[in-house]
Amino acid sequence: MEEKEISQAVIGRLPRYFRYLGELKDQGIERISSQDLSGLMKVTASQIRQDFNNFGGFGQQGYGYNVEYLYHEIGKILGLNRKHNFIIVGAGNLGQALGNYLNFERRGFIFKGVFDIDPQLAGREIRGVKVMPMEQLEQFVRDNDIDIAVLTIPKTGAVEVAEKLVKNGIRAIWNFAHVDLNVPEGIQVENVHLSDSLMKLSYNISRYMKENGEA
Amino acid sequence: MEEKEISQAVIGRLPRYFRYLGELKDQGIERISSQDLSGLMKVTASQIRQDFNNFGGFGQQGYGYNVEYLYHEIGKILGLNRKHNFIIVGAGNLGQALGNYLNFERRGFIFKGVFDIDPQLAGREIRGVKVMPMEQLEQFVRDNDIDIAVLTIPKTGAVEVAEKLVKNGIRAIWNFAHVDLNVPEGIQVENVHLSDSLMKLSYNISRYMKENGEA
Repeated sequence: MEEKEISQAVIGRLPRYFRYLGELKDQGIERISSQDLSGLMKVTASQIRQDFNNFGGFGQQGYGYNVEYLYHEIGKILGLNRKHNFIIVGAGNLGQALGNYLNFERRGFIFKGVFDIDPQLAGREIRGVKVMPMEQLEQFVRDNDIDIAVLTIPKTGAVEVAEKLVKNGIRAIWNFAHVDLNVPEGIQVENVHLSDSLMKLSYNISRYMKENGEA
Repeated sequence: MEEKEISQAVIGRLPRYFRYLGELKDQGIERISSQDLSGLMKVTASQIRQDFNNFGGFGQQGYGYNVEYLYHEIGKILGLNRKHNFIIVGAGNLGQALGNYLNFERRGFIFKGVFDIDPQLAGREIRGVKVMPMEQLEQFVRDNDIDIAVLTIPKTGAVEVAEKLVKNGIRAIWNFAHVDLNVPEGIQVENVHLSDSLMKLSYNISRYMKENGEA
């Protein structure tokens, strides 16, 4: 299927479609209309049709979408038909949480290694994977066909670690370090800045209180 | 200061401005032009001026922004001049990671309690706060002026827990459970769907490989 240039906003909505379709599939539902999907997901049916039209449409108007087919097609668009080896850099609580998240494996993300600067953590295991010292990072990335690095380290050092990862052939960084990375074109970065997200929440509380005369 | 209706896109960018200004402040920098801020943050100077104009502008053209003033003004807009008590529901690795994150305290988010359904975790401590059984959740929220609940539990149960929290006066939910919550108007929800973020990364790897003939 030929894809045109798709906006990041549309891409951002695809995982949510994928999640809902997976649930419908698990419930044994075979077909769903864009109206029903719209009601379930609380987005307009026209938005759904527009989003899907980016990828050729997927379904017949008036007849609804085949849930299983749509689920698999969106999965393919998301690249979930391909396996990705990943490592975690930073074996603290957040690194452990992500390493222990079994669902990633189910989506084709294979947990291969975990690294930490703290020698006291060396040898500990996260889901059967031993924590390795940072000195072994570069060699490991080269030898194990690692696509994705998850950065769960403090912002100090994150930029330098990212450079090393890129130099050794990583394709993508899932960045939880509280700093913006500066990577060459072609390296994909997805930031999860947790503090930023919490501040957005704080803003919305504050605005609501003002609008309602509570502050 | 009167605020007009601000788009969520602008709001989404405010924490990043706040982060950069905090770093400039820590480096002892007193003034910065929108051009220099633009270079640093890799957004256009015109975007910066447009964003700031939503809040009255903050600075003099050609003379630059006062870093300290701008930092505090944006902090106020984000509601960071107000303290927020928060609890964590779910004392697993992710809950522990968030409970241990000291920076939240510095921004006015005070960690008051943590709850888990697993009786084996009861009594354990996260940063001096004892894990409590779920039975105590509702009373605790009512008695301790809790504004924000952080949900780090599996999707099963998350909707029900959210309802209880809302019933007992919570203002906002920072939702890490992999499900969309259905809350009354006026309750703020900020979702962090980690799987969705990883899938976006996967899409971008996939698209890059296709564009470059690797797949």
